[in-house]
Amino acid sequence: MSTDSDTQSESDAREQLIDLAAEFYDQFADGEVPTMSIPTRTKSNIEYDEDMDVWVYGDRKSTRSAKTVSGAQKLLKATYVIEFLAQQLEEDRSSTLRELYYLSESFDHEEAQFNSQDESNQLIEDLEIVSDVRREEFHMRPEESGATVMGPLLIREQTRRGEREIHCQEDVGEGGYQIPNNPDTIEFLDNDADFALCVETGGMRDRLVENGFDEEHNCIVVHLKGQPARATRRLTKRLHDELGLPVTVFTDGDPWSYRIYGSVAYGSIKSAHLSEYLATPDAQFIGIQPADIVEYDLPTDPLSDSDVNALESELEDPRFQTDYWEEQIELQLDIEKKAEQQSLAARGLDFVTDTYLPERLDAMGVI
Amino acid sequence: MSTDSDTQSESDAREQLIDLAAEFYDQFADGEVPTMSIPTRTKSNIEYDEDMDVWVYGDRKSTRSAKTVSGAQKLLKATYVIEFLAQQLEEDRSSTLRELYYLSESFDHEEAQFNSQDESNQLIEDLEIVSDVRREEFHMRPEESGATVMGPLLIREQTRRGEREIHCQEDVGEGGYQIPNNPDTIEFLDNDADFALCVETGGMRDRLVENGFDEEHNCIVVHLKGQPARATRRLTKRLHDELGLPVTVFTDGDPWSYRIYGSVAYGSIKSAHLSEYLATPDAQFIGIQPADIVEYDLPTDPLSDSDVNALESELEDPRFQTDYWEEQIELQLDIEKKAEQQSLAARGLDFVTDTYLPERLDAMGVI
Repeated sequence: MSTDSDTQSESDAREQLIDLAAEFYDQFADGEVPTMSIPTRTKSNIEYDEDMDVWVYGDRKSTRSAKTVSGAQKLLKATYVIEFLAQQLEEDRSSTLRELYYLSESFDHEEAQFNSQDESNQLIEDLEIVSDVRREEFHMRPEESGATVMGPLLIREQTRRGEREIHCQEDVGEGGYQIPNNPDTIEFLDNDADFALCVETGGMRDRLVENGFDEEHNCIVVHLKGQPARATRRLTKRLHDELGLPVTVFTDGDPWSYRIYGSVAYGSIKSAHLSEYLATPDAQFIGIQPADIVEYDLPTDPLSDSDVNALESELEDPRFQTDYWEEQIELQLDIEKKAEQQSLAARGLDFVTDTYLPERLDAMGVI
Repeated sequence: MSTDSDTQSESDAREQLIDLAAEFYDQFADGEVPTMSIPTRTKSNIEYDEDMDVWVYGDRKSTRSAKTVSGAQKLLKATYVIEFLAQQLEEDRSSTLRELYYLSESFDHEEAQFNSQDESNQLIEDLEIVSDVRREEFHMRPEESGATVMGPLLIREQTRRGEREIHCQEDVGEGGYQIPNNPDTIEFLDNDADFALCVETGGMRDRLVENGFDEEHNCIVVHLKGQPARATRRLTKRLHDELGLPVTVFTDGDPWSYRIYGSVAYGSIKSAHLSEYLATPDAQFIGIQPADIVEYDLPTDPLSDSDVNALESELEDPRFQTDYWEEQIELQLDIEKKAEQQSLAARGLDFVTDTYLPERLDAMGVI
């Protein structure tokens, strides 16, 4: 982590954190009860930002105040964590969310120790929101890293051991290039890509690579590995914004997979404060669409009760309130069926790469 | 897949499958009712093979016979799958277990189609057992691939796109080298390693890499990613058998994690037919040991009822019937506590690499 921009963002992150602690100090000095105010994080408090083209938190706020014992404890914990993070950045170290939870056992004030990892995770999210600094810039890592990339892309990654130049087809095995926890350590050097294709399942990712889809269509295949990690979503956004590549998302045809698309395109409610950094609003959904289930006569499973509930909840979700999604979701509720992306194999192992994807990409205007 | 040995094993696999179908044919020709006999796959039918040093199936067998309608359907499905696999090998293609399930929809005989993926998975396992050929040699892929490797190891991977030479420290990003679905496509070219350390969680894997543990101790860090995939276990075994490296396993300190160790060292009951290929009987458990919870005074959680049940069931499991495991499990039932590997962070972020692992590795005679 030695580029100028990294050093800059780290010292900014450190300053923002210290400013936050200074605010508590000033509140004390002025004889005020210290408070911290953060946006309410519920579905009813997210709204569309037309300028940035993403969903963000609205104006409703909750206040953490030292007026109550539990509020005071929260602010105490915040100051201990700020001290830890500031020191971590000073030493150019990093840690995981779980390590932070355990580390709190070594805090000298027992009231500052966390009772559960939910509590420490939540505090880190609060600090992200109020300081406007992302977790990655605090050097906090998730438990599991991002997934893999295969495609005509040459990158340079800044590692702790020096720079690595890697071509994501020629310098990797069949498993592809493993996305690091913080993909902002990656610089795009060169590419020969026409679009990015984000794929939900490992089985389908392997099918596309085996069939040489990335080579034939100059396509960067990004494995989402189910609900994508932040690192995967961040890299996808950068492929779109910095390289100008159309981003397409290929998942199973069920409500849980539409949420995967939603998290790539719009971000999640829980992390709407990160939409600007993680969301790719121009990302297009390839399928499996309910219309595909009908058109390609795919093998299906019946919708379960929880599938139906999830679809109905999506009809209420601001992220899915478009003509396209309303039509597709209504159709699915009507046919009462869902299909997996690998069900395309019922038409043969090459159907997805020879027929389905080219037809869909053509219809979407991507190729 | 173009090395001589690969081509050899593929044509062997094809022959074994065709022999199996020929056996049904001969049974028919001789006026016998066709049958297929496979070992019973339960805990009571696994036994220790002293020569190979692994747990394998005992002598108890179940028979699939065409005497009943359901037995006849099973054998019919087996012949269709054998035909598909033989053709797949002929064409040097591969497919996932899930694709096979969907592909069966295209079988011309409706009775040969699978009713669930459990059924097709089970059939592939049966075919592995009776033909003595591994799924990988049938070119059947799992849904999710193996995990990652970081360490002083130079490999050559045979990919469909040609050979790739990759040094697992110098040619990879912080994410490491992604293990391919079939690690037998890897050739070990050179290494400077003293041992392998298999790590359960991503957070701990990242800690070791950040702290440069692989560099300082000439250690190959293999991320298990929870219950390890077959590809990960196969690679681990090869590191031991071909490079003569001691293999150590580092997990959380709870009964579910001991099973992760068990699957690396002894294989699983469900796949005892693969122990010879996947198990590393010399693999040593580093911890977190119940004794460590006491010695290092680690932050803990209380054992749940299901933890207690799992520990008691391990006391009955032939794989854990050693003095060491009985002592550790009894101790854990006594203290009624469990600890995660990242709980070592309560002693600081470097405690695991500066103190805990060196002490344990020294005590185990590895370093």
